[in-house]
Amino acid sequence: MALDETAHGVYVIAPTPFHPDGRVDEASTDRMTDFYLEAGCDGITALGVMGEAPKLDGAEALDVATRIIRRAGRAPVIIGVSAPGFAAMRALARGVMEVGAAGVMIAPPNTLRTDDQIVAYYAQAAEAIGSDVPFVVQDFPAQFSVVMTPAVIRRIVMANPNCVMVKHEDWPGLEKITALRGFEADGSMRHVSILCGNGGLFLDFEVERGADGAMTGYAFPDMLVDLVRLSREGQRDAAHDLFDAHLPLIRYEQQMGGIGLAVRKYVLARRGIIASDAQRKPGSALSARAKAEVEYLLSRVARFDKRALKLAA
Amino acid sequence: MALDETAHGVYVIAPTPFHPDGRVDEASTDRMTDFYLEAGCDGITALGVMGEAPKLDGAEALDVATRIIRRAGRAPVIIGVSAPGFAAMRALARGVMEVGAAGVMIAPPNTLRTDDQIVAYYAQAAEAIGSDVPFVVQDFPAQFSVVMTPAVIRRIVMANPNCVMVKHEDWPGLEKITALRGFEADGSMRHVSILCGNGGLFLDFEVERGADGAMTGYAFPDMLVDLVRLSREGQRDAAHDLFDAHLPLIRYEQQMGGIGLAVRKYVLARRGIIASDAQRKPGSALSARAKAEVEYLLSRVARFDKRALKLAA
Amino acid sequence: MALDETAHGVYVIAPTPFHPDGRVDEASTDRMTDFYLEAGCDGITALGVMGEAPKLDGAEALDVATRIIRRAGRAPVIIGVSAPGFAAMRALARGVMEVGAAGVMIAPPNTLRTDDQIVAYYAQAAEAIGSDVPFVVQDFPAQFSVVMTPAVIRRIVMANPNCVMVKHEDWPGLEKITALRGFEADGSMRHVSILCGNGGLFLDFEVERGADGAMTGYAFPDMLVDLVRLSREGQRDAAHDLFDAHLPLIRYEQQMGGIGLAVRKYVLARRGIIASDAQRKPGSALSARAKAEVEYLLSRVARFDKRALKLAA
Amino acid sequence: MALDETAHGVYVIAPTPFHPDGRVDEASTDRMTDFYLEAGCDGITALGVMGEAPKLDGAEALDVATRIIRRAGRAPVIIGVSAPGFAAMRALARGVMEVGAAGVMIAPPNTLRTDDQIVAYYAQAAEAIGSDVPFVVQDFPAQFSVVMTPAVIRRIVMANPNCVMVKHEDWPGLEKITALRGFEADGSMRHVSILCGNGGLFLDFEVERGADGAMTGYAFPDMLVDLVRLSREGQRDAAHDLFDAHLPLIRYEQQMGGIGLAVRKYVLARRGIIASDAQRKPGSALSARAKAEVEYLLSRVARFDKRALKLAA
Repeated sequence: MALDETAHGVYVIAPTPFHPDGRVDEASTDRMTDFYLEAGCDGITALGVMGEAPKLDGAEALDVATRIIRRAGRAPVIIGVSAPGFAAMRALARGVMEVGAAGVMIAPPNTLRTDDQIVAYYAQAAEAIGSDVPFVVQDFPAQFSVVMTPAVIRRIVMANPNCVMVKHEDWPGLEKITALRGFEADGSMRHVSILCGNGGLFLDFEVERGADGAMTGYAFPDMLVDLVRLSREGQRDAAHDLFDAHLPLIRYEQQMGGIGLAVRKYVLARRGIIASDAQRKPGSALSARAKAEVEYLLSRVARFDKRALKLAA
Repeated sequence: MALDETAHGVYVIAPTPFHPDGRVDEASTDRMTDFYLEAGCDGITALGVMGEAPKLDGAEALDVATRIIRRAGRAPVIIGVSAPGFAAMRALARGVMEVGAAGVMIAPPNTLRTDDQIVAYYAQAAEAIGSDVPFVVQDFPAQFSVVMTPAVIRRIVMANPNCVMVKHEDWPGLEKITALRGFEADGSMRHVSILCGNGGLFLDFEVERGADGAMTGYAFPDMLVDLVRLSREGQRDAAHDLFDAHLPLIRYEQQMGGIGLAVRKYVLARRGIIASDAQRKPGSALSARAKAEVEYLLSRVARFDKRALKLAA
Repeated sequence: MALDETAHGVYVIAPTPFHPDGRVDEASTDRMTDFYLEAGCDGITALGVMGEAPKLDGAEALDVATRIIRRAGRAPVIIGVSAPGFAAMRALARGVMEVGAAGVMIAPPNTLRTDDQIVAYYAQAAEAIGSDVPFVVQDFPAQFSVVMTPAVIRRIVMANPNCVMVKHEDWPGLEKITALRGFEADGSMRHVSILCGNGGLFLDFEVERGADGAMTGYAFPDMLVDLVRLSREGQRDAAHDLFDAHLPLIRYEQQMGGIGLAVRKYVLARRGIIASDAQRKPGSALSARAKAEVEYLLSRVARFDKRALKLAA
Repeated sequence: MALDETAHGVYVIAPTPFHPDGRVDEASTDRMTDFYLEAGCDGITALGVMGEAPKLDGAEALDVATRIIRRAGRAPVIIGVSAPGFAAMRALARGVMEVGAAGVMIAPPNTLRTDDQIVAYYAQAAEAIGSDVPFVVQDFPAQFSVVMTPAVIRRIVMANPNCVMVKHEDWPGLEKITALRGFEADGSMRHVSILCGNGGLFLDFEVERGADGAMTGYAFPDMLVDLVRLSREGQRDAAHDLFDAHLPLIRYEQQMGGIGLAVRKYVLARRGIIASDAQRKPGSALSARAKAEVEYLLSRVARFDKRALKLAA
């Protein structure tokens, strides 16, 4: 089932579960995949920034991707294939499509500066992976130092028919969503799916601005599913009430340098979804102080959302 | 009254009020200064990143600083004196100290890379302003691309007796506060004041980690004052309840590129504190859509905090 | 005499002469100005990156500029007015035009990324200085981290009638000169003067590609004058012979971080043009080893060019 | 034969020869390897920045490395193993050591900022490749945006016994060589080999400052061999005469963004060493104008050095 521009809802960003000794934890990978789908996620994205992908060698990366893809059955799985060169990108992209991936995600290398450089890069990437492989543009300036204007995204979309989605994580980004939807309205750009990252920090308004949903790894993807649904149903206050209850924790997860991932894995482990919060080396771990802060935040979320209550008990 | 390492509480970052035609709005400057002190702020910081300082020429900058300093009376005022060269930095620093500033704040130029470069820069800056001028190190990597480890901050503090405060806005930064307080505890660094910026996004935990308070421009500094007080009194849940009620708006203010400032000025104008939300050119303005989002957020804050209720009515 | 798009030849970049105690050396400033004009330079550019401009306060900058402008008489003088904000830029630009500057030079702030940001910045700068002030776009990616495609330069030129010159110091840059001249040939861009910087390292080919000359601070501007003349006369081999004889020293001057400036001031002092090679603090000085290397290079240049012989004697 | 700290002379950086259709050209790879050794090179470095390594997939990279290693026989071959993650780095490093590489070269990722981050990265890399694998630190700030002070290099050297060489391409860098040799002299750092890159632009003085030789890909490595020998023999003027004759071409090769590589491959092809100057896509090609410039430079070099004469005929 190939990814296309109608994709919407929640495509959760999956971490890669490891045993404390650094081996990939396959049982946790399966349990996590099952959980995501039971939680109502529409798809899964693996081997992204948060998936510790660079710590996997080529064979491992393909193994992890294959395992998730097969376990997910008919649910679409997107695989991050960003690489320092097009040969490795192509190899991974072809490999994961063969085992059933729905599409791939491509981040820009942080050496790109001008509009033309960015557009040329995606043309080359699209050629490298092949025109039959749907791809997602990852627009994440804070992480990659590459700034794409709405007009540049339009050029990428119009030049590459297999570009079907934007992972939107510019910051600030609300006006950008409005601009892209405006391009669609004025006929200057075909429709693409827009799923939002940035840890979900602005998701409450992003969906109101026209985004199709979320692509992020917040440890309560089931909340994201509810939020997107409530917003789509027009239940604005209810959507914000739910979001605001989780915001202190969402905010706490928004920490660069591996801390955010440590929080997510910690919470996923606390929820019983993965066995260990271990990161493969070199990784970061939460201090005792930070764990206590997360526990406190969970206990506060639980006052509103029983999903946090259960584990916080 | 010179700034020293015992400073604590809330030093609010002041914007520079302008008339819609671009002239400095002196009446609003006075009203804003009065408001800050009535709101319980312990001090004021002017001509920071948020103060549109680079849009003022030298004479205007000194005028704005002088007006706020004089109006604030005995309350300490810190002036941002970051400049591309030490001559301009020295000129402004000496100028504002003469009219009664409590101290100055210095951000690192974004060309600094190595530990030694950072330490050398602050030594040169300290010499340029003079050893009798207390100064604040602004540690804001996301804005300035300069990364200071705790050990580098310690070197700066120990090498420059007139370094009395760190404006902490690293992100993530909680462990950094713990590390700096650890240096004080183990005797390897003398005590300095730590006031937190970053729009207050982590202030709830920063004060618990040992920070002395806030130095940020959130449009409800009266809330920051309460938060710091509650936390200091050990009323943890009450502090978080208050913080969480404001967090959706605090988060919304956290937008780079002038948007965050536009939100702040909009709210300050809605509260009647400044006459206009105008930024001097080149500035950014809120779209109608964004204004409606801010109004919605204000209405939600008002359910918990009557200070937002009054204006949202 | 206003700068316009017919400017050509050598506009030498002037350092700011200081006494060893840090005061501006006015006698050396006069002698240097006289020397430049006697050497055949067509114009002078002051307060550029190499002019230690950020170390001057506002009054000093205007004084230095005024002194050079007046001393230069009818020869055109361009003043660097790059500043962190438009207020300071405007103040300096208006100030130096009043005392007779021919035009100003504007470098982009290193926060600009997208094509539109760069174009918008120059539109704002052009408005700030006033449409009657001719300006030079400084295209120096290695220094400013801002990458301008030929198409972006064309947009700046076409949007701002007072943009009359490009200081070309992209690297590599030969194809860029060809592209810009191609725009002129195909009628899509009006003619602008292109003078080349980058220490002159590619000047031999740059003038062959269509550049109008040099704007750089090599310590033998008299050589640059000869080179541009020889190339213009079609004496290709003679031009390269002269250039190649100086290339080892030109190359040695190409060192960032103040070393290059230290070499230039050292050679200018050795030539008797300025009294001291002092840089105002914080500056760099040549090690004894580096001085010996420069002396060796001078002795080798002198085998071909007697201008180096005289001083090396 | 493992690489150790006594390495000296010329370790030429090898490009990867391609057929015009993008396949690796194995015959040219062999001929090039033979040529390098006949030219007197002491070793070869493959899969560096210049080797188009990111355009090779994992299997190709290992094939190219293996081919060169085997062809080189007893001559030491260093393989670039820089990678976005330690898993891929380890896999390539172990793979090439198994087939006989002498050591590996590791560049820092451009996200590193603080001294401690750089030191920690090399500790992790050293652990990933294994303590039995000798490695080279690539110090190339202009390419990687990572600035290492001499003290940081000393920390890396002292913490990792298998660090045996620095590829020095900081710019300016002469004082850095002096500083590192000073550390050895004062006993604070054990001896490591220093081979210089940066296209050889400062090689004449670098060897005088104490560098052990060159590691760069200039298309006349036979000249580099002579230069290092002459300098070692104390024939200073002869060394500079030779260097200066080549400097205009060395300088022309110093162009970023693939242009420099295009020049090198063009000259190697003109010398009959490789069959084609093709770069694998996405690559750059020389314009007709640029080719003519290179031919002109070759004809000028040939007046002094018959090795350029032969092909220029």
